[in-house]
Parts: sequence; structure tokens; C-alpha cells
Amino acid sequence: MAEFAARHQALLDQAIAAARSRAHFSAYPEAPSGRIYGETAKAEAEAAFAALLGKPFEGGEALVGDERSPFGPALGITYPALPPATLVARAEAAAPAWAEADPAARAGVLLEILHRLNRDSFLMANAVMHTTGQAFVMAFQAGGPHAQDRGLEAVAYAMEELSRVPTTAAWHKPAGRDTLRMDKRFRAVPRGIGLVIGCATFPTWNGYPGLFASLATGNAVIVKPHPAAILPLALTIRTARTVMAEAGFAPDVVQLAPDTPEAPIAEQLATHPAIGIVDFTGGPVFGARLRGLIAGTKPLHTEEAGINPVVLHSTADFAGLCRNLAFSLALYSGQMCTAPQNIFVSATGMDTDQGRKSFDEVAAAIVAALDELLADPARAAGVLGAIQNPGTLTRIAAARRLGRVLRDSAPLPGEARTATPLLVEVLADAEEAWGEERFGPIAFLIRCPDAEAALRLAAQSTKARGAITALVHSTDDAFLARAEAAFAKAGVALSENLTGGVFVNQSAAFSDYHVSGANPAGTSCLTDAAFVTNRFHIAMVRRPPA
Amino acid sequence: MAEFAARHQALLDQAIAAARSRAHFSAYPEAPSGRIYGETAKAEAEAAFAALLGKPFEGGEALVGDERSPFGPALGITYPALPPATLVARAEAAAPAWAEADPAARAGVLLEILHRLNRDSFLMANAVMHTTGQAFVMAFQAGGPHAQDRGLEAVAYAMEELSRVPTTAAWHKPAGRDTLRMDKRFRAVPRGIGLVIGCATFPTWNGYPGLFASLATGNAVIVKPHPAAILPLALTIRTARTVMAEAGFAPDVVQLAPDTPEAPIAEQLATHPAIGIVDFTGGPVFGARLRGLIAGTKPLHTEEAGINPVVLHSTADFAGLCRNLAFSLALYSGQMCTAPQNIFVSATGMDTDQGRKSFDEVAAAIVAALDELLADPARAAGVLGAIQNPGTLTRIAAARRLGRVLRDSAPLPGEARTATPLLVEVLADAEEAWGEERFGPIAFLIRCPDAEAALRLAAQSTKARGAITALVHSTDDAFLARAEAAFAKAGVALSENLTGGVFVNQSAAFSDYHVSGANPAGTSCLTDAAFVTNRFHIAMVRRPPA
Repeated sequence: MAEFAARHQALLDQAIAAARSRAHFSAYPEAPSGRIYGETAKAEAEAAFAALLGKPFEGGEALVGDERSPFGPALGITYPALPPATLVARAEAAAPAWAEADPAARAGVLLEILHRLNRDSFLMANAVMHTTGQAFVMAFQAGGPHAQDRGLEAVAYAMEELSRVPTTAAWHKPAGRDTLRMDKRFRAVPRGIGLVIGCATFPTWNGYPGLFASLATGNAVIVKPHPAAILPLALTIRTARTVMAEAGFAPDVVQLAPDTPEAPIAEQLATHPAIGIVDFTGGPVFGARLRGLIAGTKPLHTEEAGINPVVLHSTADFAGLCRNLAFSLALYSGQMCTAPQNIFVSATGMDTDQGRKSFDEVAAAIVAALDELLADPARAAGVLGAIQNPGTLTRIAAARRLGRVLRDSAPLPGEARTATPLLVEVLADAEEAWGEERFGPIAFLIRCPDAEAALRLAAQSTKARGAITALVHSTDDAFLARAEAAFAKAGVALSENLTGGVFVNQSAAFSDYHVSGANPAGTSCLTDAAFVTNRFHIAMVRRPPA
Repeated sequence: MAEFAARHQALLDQAIAAARSRAHFSAYPEAPSGRIYGETAKAEAEAAFAALLGKPFEGGEALVGDERSPFGPALGITYPALPPATLVARAEAAAPAWAEADPAARAGVLLEILHRLNRDSFLMANAVMHTTGQAFVMAFQAGGPHAQDRGLEAVAYAMEELSRVPTTAAWHKPAGRDTLRMDKRFRAVPRGIGLVIGCATFPTWNGYPGLFASLATGNAVIVKPHPAAILPLALTIRTARTVMAEAGFAPDVVQLAPDTPEAPIAEQLATHPAIGIVDFTGGPVFGARLRGLIAGTKPLHTEEAGINPVVLHSTADFAGLCRNLAFSLALYSGQMCTAPQNIFVSATGMDTDQGRKSFDEVAAAIVAALDELLADPARAAGVLGAIQNPGTLTRIAAARRLGRVLRDSAPLPGEARTATPLLVEVLADAEEAWGEERFGPIAFLIRCPDAEAALRLAAQSTKARGAITALVHSTDDAFLARAEAAFAKAGVALSENLTGGVFVNQSAAFSDYHVSGANPAGTSCLTDAAFVTNRFHIAMVRRPPA
């Protein structure tokens, strides 16, 4: 246990420094390369993944699981399901030793878990790909190293905040000619059991921050995966339990709680008095339900949904703008919480390095950029991945009727469930069309009276309905300044003039704050101090000196 | 404005250091002494207070106010009441300049406000005394310097947390032979308008932390005082508005929102979409109502109520124990959120330096200590103060019937509304008697099967019903260790073996964490990082370097 802490101390220090400087930092290599991960890693992971299929993940009584790859086959893996009361009882039995461990020792254990998860990133890539529908490279990066970085970031924040509480204080208060004296001791005490409710699209990337933040602050954790994406979290928890046991802790410090759509257990767990913290990633309907059920009696950290805006005012690189935006719309078929949905453009068009472009010319150029990006089916498959949920296809069909179809959605060849981006033109006042989240490869080009109205609508809809990212293109510093003020107030991270290899969808651990907590897209930020400070309280003892 | 920051920088640095070390620190002298505050300060304050009586506090249309001194007369002061929509509109108009100001400049303004409030502590003492019923010295200390220290502490925490966010970062990510580059800017943005809902017993001590934390993090604030204790907060806000104007800000950065019991406005304000943060001190019934209404859509920091336990296991200073405990029971007639209510003692008594004392002997000794403390009517009046709310007398009458009266409550001579402590003996299983908060000078001596049962009941009731303080007396290190573990888990600050001049009721800014947030006594701690970190979010802008 102490060995793990010593082994990983330097990395933890680097992570803490990076979270403060917000400069680029990554602990885990993102390239799915044999030179980094071992020349046989990819093939071994494919074999290991194949060996998991069609059988129980581990033994147990009530086995559940009906995951189906968006690329085709059912996985046929089942997982032992335990009743909430049993999960809670086991967590409570395991919790005290974890709570009482030295925070540095806990951090060592967690970094060892992350280290082993990183080593197994190729297997995780297969698991993420065949549950979420992400294409392989994204499944590797977002499901593996980038998620691991987010986990490490959470540990770094937790250690920073825990370190602010002194362990002892000698309190000497002058009182006339006397001095009042107290010896005081302080200790960070975990809130209770953490519950992490996972999502179907980024089960590890969105799950690790809450998991590692709650663990680092001393809480046992129960992870309730989405029924469609159990495997990535089951692999995670298997690794975590192994390391826990090696470090001398009860494996039940971390437990998997799979369920089924027919008999969901998230509400029962979330409202259980022993659950002290809830982390949820998913839709706003269940998010609102959880907020109501919990009613402020325990911390609830959510990432729900948003309608991410793009405002096109002017550009010095129109071709780059269109290429960059097309990629953002197409990447993982718009199934990222950071993908743009609403592109606000003045009806009078925009100034560009190619001269003034009319609204229709802007529309045509974005469509052309999408068509070019997706012309080669193999490349298109690598960008788009597959559609995680069949319901998304229904949403696409409905969205076609909301305005003028500028570019229709179509499947790619092959057996995977796929859909290229749909782009629909609507008027600014058609808020019933663009004013709610339409998850998937659905975007609107919104004809606005002018660029100021475009900005105003983008900011207003962010505040009212939530957004996680915003993108603005302008060559006018004054317009950018107005955009910065408006989006800061609306609580959304703003990217400006992206025309190259950085995309609005991307949020880098240690540098980009993901979700603000200040609009309906979510209650918390990955990761800031507020994400960790309410996962523990400070216990105090004072007594007269001996 | 910059001048205020420069003037107070050294004090702010000291306060930040003290909040980290938790050693004794106080910025504002607690002694109501002419040598410190000016030989004429006391008399001038009495005259100033008298001049406030019987007239409008300031001009305005709808005047409200019906404060009555628990020491006798109605104050006859009225205050202009504005509709919530007007208050919000004025706050929103004043907010942007305050939000955009440099945090250090804001802190300077706030420390200047605290400096002037300190200078006027004698006037505040009169205002607090004649609304809350606190005796003069407590009204001076708790209403003045101690409250000011709590306000300074909140500013210190806010400045610490704001300082962690860098203003810029140069992000350079290696990407093959290329480097991806982004220039990033970060800014802390206030959540919205802060609402502070005040209480009737410690309007400034409990109100200043939220007020100053929200202001320091850039939020405009509306303060809704309890109808029975408007004046202390009206004086506070008059000072704050004066300093705001001198510093070039709109006075409406801080506003008073008085209301009446007949037409309360707290709910309407708390649920207004423009209100971004709510701080509430008061009863658990309204606390639960607020939690349900707000349902996790904005941060809600509460201090509600608890049933503070005392566990008597053994002592090396029985006389000191009884004297200390009697003072804690009598101080401000038990109307402190930190006052003990439930004294758990084994039916077999306890070991003491005077030999084994039976349960009945312990009871008799505590009663005798109370009688001795209160024997001299002048001294008794100075300790007990007056009863803030007539309803407390009704509660005392009802509590007499809950068990065997060990010491009856009685009024002191004079016209003030007073009541000495009632001590009632009950059995451990009479949880319907001792298991809920009975606010005021009401305490139970609870006959437990043994000391372990006493500890178990104390900890269980803390977790279930909430407590802000706990006190244990024991000469057995193993028992103390068990108590420390149990009360840490139950989320209550523990004092051990208090026999001298420090009392369980006392919570010192910068050293004692007040309320844990981990049991029903409240959702937040005064003051830890979690108290300030959710009052702002971090806005980010990234763009390719020029």
C-alpha cells in the first residue's frame, strides 16, 4: 500500500501542478500504438475481449446483462446483480478501513488502479467500442487514456483539498491575565457511500471523475452502469477490486451494481440513507427526477444535456472553419455532450477571407465539408462510429420534418447501426425545433436577423436550456468580447475561431473545465474544487491540554 | 477602492494564514472596552440607538417592522419594504460592475465594511440585545467582533479559492511532429444573486458568513432578515451600502429585504431564477421546505437545528464539570444552536475525583451548579439574557410534563421575558421526549443502561436528528477514542473534558469548524472550502494563438 504511494508520488505531484497551471498535461499516452502499449497488446486485447463474450463475466446468482454492439452482435455477457440492501451492507462493511487510511496511501492505491487500467487500454477500447458505438480510435482514447486522465485529475483535486485541513492546532487565546488553551485535532471524514450512475456513451470518461473523487476522499463507491454499457465499468471495477485486495483493503470498497431497464435500481440506491453522494451522467428528465428525490439532502453532481451553440459572425479562414465544424458535427455521430447542435448565422451571411458569403453559401459550404469528410466510407466509419441507441434513428426521422433539410442523414454501408449528420435549416423563431436537445447527428442552421441576434439567442438558450460548449467565429475583437461576456454569464466554455486540429467537442483534463454547473447542462464541473469539497466533512476534537 | 485593498491587505493575509493553521486568531477585539473602542463609544451608541427608536429607519413607501425588545419595549422602527421583483431588478442592475471587479479590490471593500462595523460594535450590541434578548456582553461579542471575524473568515476562504484559478494558460499539445496550441483564459464568474435569510437569535453571527462569502465571490446579495431581528442587519447593510458607494459601486450590490410574518417573501425570493445561492439559518421545518422548493437547482447553505448531546462517562474534576456544564445550559437561556440539550448518563452513575457518583448525585450536582450560577439576580441576568420568542415559554411549560423535573424553570425578577433552565430526567427509551429539538432553556438528563449505551444513543441521535456540538467527559482514553470515532462519523464537533473557561457552546472563527454539513443540523460548514467553492463557476475561453 505504501509502496503504491511511493511509486506514484511523482505523477501525483505533476498532476496537482498541472491542474493549477492548466497547461497541457497527460499521464497516459493517447496513441493506440504497439510501441507504447506493447506490440502484442492489440491482438491480445482482441482475444481477451472475444473470450469475454457469450458467458457470465463472473459467477453469481441473479445474472443480468443484455448489451448489444452497435456494430452488430449481442455481447451475451451477464453480470451478477445484487439487491441494493446487500450492496449497501457490503459497502458499509468495507468502508471504515478505507475511510481511516492515510489520504496519501489511498491516492497511491488509486493511481495503481489507473496505471493498470491504462495498461489494459486496448481491452477497454474493445469494451467501449462495442457498447457505445464509438469507432476504435475514439473508444481507445476517450474510453482509455483520456478517461484515466480525468480520474487522475479528480484524485489530484481531492488531495489538494484534503491537504488544506491541518491535523492539529494549538489554540491559545489571551483572556485577561490568563490564557485559554485547547488542543485541537482535525480529520477529513467521508460523507458516506458514493453512488456513480453511468451513461451509455462515455461510461468511463464520465464515470471516472465521480468514482475517483469519491474514493480519494475516503468514500466507498457503488457504480451503477447504464444497462447498455456495463462492460467498461465492470472491467474497471474488476481491476479496482484486485488492487484494493492487494493493498489490504476489502474489495467491496468498490462494487458494480448492474441492473436492467425492466427493474432499475438507481432511484432506490440514490435515496438510500447510507448513500452520501450521487454522481449522475445522463438525460435531463432523470436528472430532474433525482434532484427532486434527493431534494438537497446530499450532494448530487450531474452532467445532463445541453444544446451547444455555434455563432458564425466572420472568419479569416472560411475553408478551415467549414472543415473544423464538419468534423465536430460528424465525430461519433454527434453523440458527444460537447457536440454542436445549433449553428446561428445571420440571414445576411458573413464576412470571410473569400469575401462575403450569403447564408445559403455558408450552408452549402458546411454541407460540402461534411460530404468531403464522409466521402470515403472507411474514413467516414472511423469518424462517425455507430449509433448507440436505436431511438436516435427515430429522432433523426422526426428532425427531418422540422425545417428545410440542407443535408440528409443516411446510413453507411455495412451491418453497423450508423447515420451521417442531418443538417436542417430553421428560422430563429422556430425555437420549438432548435430549442431542445436532439441527441445524435442532428444539427440546425438557424437563420437569424443579424449576428447580434445570433449571439443573443445562443447565449439565452444556453442559460435557459443548458450547454456544455460554445463556439464563435469572428475577426472582430469587439464581437468576441461581447461573446465572451455573454457566454461566461451563461456558464459555458467558449472556443473561438477553431479552424485547425482542435475541435469544440474536445475537453482536455487538467486544462479545460468541463461543464460549469451554472446552467441546466449539469450541476458540477469536471473538475474544480467544488467537485470534491462536498465529498467529505471535517471532524474536529478539542480538549484542554494535558 | 484600491486604497481599501491596500489598507487591509495585511489583515487579509493574516486571516488566510489563520484559517489554514486553525490557531487562535481574531481581527476584532471582543472586549466591550472604552480603552479599545473609545471612552465615549458606549454612551454615544446608547444615544444613537435611542435616536433610532420609534421612527422609520429610512424613508420609503411600504414601511414594515414590529420588533419588540425581549427586555421590554417595542422598538417602533420601520423599514422600507420592496417587492421581490424590484429587489431582484436592482440587484441585477448593480451586479455586473461588482462581478467584474478584481477580487482583491472586492476584498478590500469588504474588509472596509467589516472595519466600520467593528468601529460601531457598541451600537450593534444595542441592536442585537434588543432584538434577540442576548445580554449586553454577549450581544456585543457575538453580534459584533465575533460575527465580524466570521465575515472576515468567509472573505479569506473566498480569496483562497479564487486564487487557485489561473487567469491564463498556454496549452501546447504534441501531436506527431506538430504541436496543437491554444491560448486559454479563465475567470471566476459569480453564480447569480445571493439570498441570505436571517435568524432571530444571531442575526449577524449567522448571517455574515453567507453575506460575505457571496459578496467576495462577486455576487450581489439580498438580505432577508427575520421579522423579529431586522435592525442588526439593517445597520449592517447601511454600512455596506455606504462603503460600496464610496468605492464607486452601486449601493444595490447589497440590499435589505424586510418582510412581515403575515406576508413573508423568503420563498418567493429563494425560488426566483435570478437568485443563484441561498443561505438560510432557521428551523428545520422551513429548511426542509426550502430544500424541496429549490430541489438542487442552486446551492443552498443551511444551519437548521440539532439536539446537542453530552455524554458523562467519568471525570477528574467533577466540580469543574458541573460548573462548566451549568454555564453552557444557562448561557443565553439555551437559545444557542450550540447549547447542549441531552445529557446522557449511566443509571449506575459515573466515576469522579470525588469517588463514584450515582445518577441522582450527578443530577443533584448539576442542579446545584445551576442554582449557584444563577443565585445572584444581576449575574443571572447577565448570563441568561432574555427569551427571544414567547413560544419558548410555551415549550418550557410542555417540557415540564415529559419526565421528572429535576430543576424547574422560573422567570427572573423584572420586566424582561426570562426563564432559567429547566432540567428534566427521562429514561433512555423516552425518545419522544429528548429525540427532538426543544429550543430554549430545556435540557434532559437521560438515564441510560450504561455509558456505552449513552454514547451510542448520543451518536445515533446526532446522525438521525442533527447536532452541532457534542461534549464528552471521560478519563478513559479508550472511551474517548470510541467517542471521537462515533461523533466524527455522525458529523459533529466534539469537545472533551471541558471544566474551565472554554464552553461547548463557543465556536471560534478561524479555528472551530461550525456545523459539518454531514447531519440534519445543516448542509454547510462555517467555514470550509465547500462553503465558498459553489458560489462561483469558472468561465473559460480558448482560441488559437495569434
